[in-house]
Amino acid sequence: MKHINKIVIGLILSVSVQASSDTQLRQKAESVNLKAIPESKVELLKLVDVASNPITDAKVELGKKLYFDPRLSKSGLISCNTCHNLALGGVDGVSAAIGHKWTSNPHNLNSPTVYNSVLNSAQFWDGRSPHLEDQAQGPIQAGPEMAAPKALVTERIMSIPAYVEEFKKAYGTKQKITFEKIADTIAVYERTLITPSRYDDFLNGDDKALTKSEKAGLVMFIDKGCVTCHAGVAVGGDMQPFEVVKKYKFSKVGDFKGDKNGMVKAPTLRNIEETAPYFHNGQIWSLKNAIKEMGSIQLGIDINDKDAKSIETFLNALTGRKPTVVYPVLPASKFNTPRPNSL
Amino acid sequence: MKHINKIVIGLILSVSVQASSDTQLRQKAESVNLKAIPESKVELLKLVDVASNPITDAKVELGKKLYFDPRLSKSGLISCNTCHNLALGGVDGVSAAIGHKWTSNPHNLNSPTVYNSVLNSAQFWDGRSPHLEDQAQGPIQAGPEMAAPKALVTERIMSIPAYVEEFKKAYGTKQKITFEKIADTIAVYERTLITPSRYDDFLNGDDKALTKSEKAGLVMFIDKGCVTCHAGVAVGGDMQPFEVVKKYKFSKVGDFKGDKNGMVKAPTLRNIEETAPYFHNGQIWSLKNAIKEMGSIQLGIDINDKDAKSIETFLNALTGRKPTVVYPVLPASKFNTPRPNSL
Repeated sequence: MKHINKIVIGLILSVSVQASSDTQLRQKAESVNLKAIPESKVELLKLVDVASNPITDAKVELGKKLYFDPRLSKSGLISCNTCHNLALGGVDGVSAAIGHKWTSNPHNLNSPTVYNSVLNSAQFWDGRSPHLEDQAQGPIQAGPEMAAPKALVTERIMSIPAYVEEFKKAYGTKQKITFEKIADTIAVYERTLITPSRYDDFLNGDDKALTKSEKAGLVMFIDKGCVTCHAGVAVGGDMQPFEVVKKYKFSKVGDFKGDKNGMVKAPTLRNIEETAPYFHNGQIWSLKNAIKEMGSIQLGIDINDKDAKSIETFLNALTGRKPTVVYPVLPASKFNTPRPNSL
Repeated sequence: MKHINKIVIGLILSVSVQASSDTQLRQKAESVNLKAIPESKVELLKLVDVASNPITDAKVELGKKLYFDPRLSKSGLISCNTCHNLALGGVDGVSAAIGHKWTSNPHNLNSPTVYNSVLNSAQFWDGRSPHLEDQAQGPIQAGPEMAAPKALVTERIMSIPAYVEEFKKAYGTKQKITFEKIADTIAVYERTLITPSRYDDFLNGDDKALTKSEKAGLVMFIDKGCVTCHAGVAVGGDMQPFEVVKKYKFSKVGDFKGDKNGMVKAPTLRNIEETAPYFHNGQIWSLKNAIKEMGSIQLGIDINDKDAKSIETFLNALTGRKPTVVYPVLPASKFNTPRPNSL
């Protein structure tokens, strides 16, 4: 009896120690500005919605169609989803994006994930775009990407009556269909691409959402200083002095120097397991190596194999639950729809 | 009262005349071998399932993933869905397919729709492939399409544990993952891509499924002789002596002569509204013009604008209800997954 009591007391102690250490870990995470994706829809909306372009069901549905429509490109073959593939963690899985006429990104830049991109403080690697509405206009027009002039895009859309109807439904009958409105609508859809993970569940109070090794990895992630650049709800997404750019120069084409202050956006680490290859130029394929490289280049420390593995274990818990996407049926082109042009 | 009686009798007569003419139209359609997609699932399965590679839920789910997975191509950028886009009537909407390194199809051949392709009597324009299991192997390997050698495809799939698991679920633990098995699985998914339309509803007994002008168009379609080549459940899909090939020669590259007897597969007309441009080389963008051209080249008759318009009205009723496709979340590549190669 005495023996059993001991075990019971031991168990109770261990459970409460565990619970208290979970609470402490949450406090520790909070103290370095790690933040969960809120469970409450109202709280989430506060993070992702903007008064200038509010989310509505009609815009989301139309935005999804536009996101998947390759007719937004000159060739008719490349959609937003080509490089930011929702089936593949929101990326293309290649080192540098390949676009119109099989052109590589001129700065050898790696396509960032669209998932949770609304949580970034700025868009593009050099942060030159303040929000998704602005960002979405870039790749559609860029010669090495979708290569479609504004007028071509609007003419295509306006030639398809079902699209015109959907724009009316989304914005009212008086709204003109402009290139900017098309980009705005895509941005609204992108704002909904949020992927809560077990990491968020843990921060939101579910002790069991992370395993013991994942919790240990989170501690390691904090203690090694990764949170210096990878914090906030995005676990990244802010402009940072990015030493790695100096190390990983480019061989062939235009160099990438970051913004005018040499700052580069630290990517979100959400879904990082799914978004290899890593770094701005996609030169590192192993997450563990990426962790070690970042330790030495950015933090000036050696992260040994075991510790890197532990951090990797934690990072894998950032793989989130993707929104269910019903693949759209797009309205057919008409005879007067400007033709695809692959040249 | 007499007056009202007259109206009532008139109405009854008109309804019964209409009903009897609908029955007659169905009989007329049947007499020229036009056939509906069956409403009964059992009957449909008899059409699309094969004993050598039976449809199962596990294969369909895995096949859908493979269908959408660009890692089946050498570059990691082109999936089956790139040229046979389920959002765009099962095609790419360009004259000739563009593939690896932005290469045009060497015979300038237009990508046929994947929807209802199981109903074709043979696959490819020259009918060289007897079924989808065989067909699916072609474009994955073809240099100007997905350009992936068999070994690369199987190595990629086998390096991704979640795919290996799904193959076990679909085929049992002893089944080896081969290139052929991968193609088989894609074919199973494709067998499910059937799109019943209002035309089928009409043939299956719903008098109101087609409008008066669509019924008139159907009569015109039969009477002009279009059914010579476009009949059966596929409304096409059989090998035919295709005179149009002789007229529409190619300017730049390899000519296309059809099979060894000069026969070419008449494409299905299902969803034809969504699959412009038309003909084996995608040189005709207007459906009405395509109808008129086929009249003169294939049938040796002039179809005037009004009659062509009437046939077009009917053909638009062949636009079918697409199966709901939940866009897949694909398992992530691993460090040992063979890398994409865009060269």
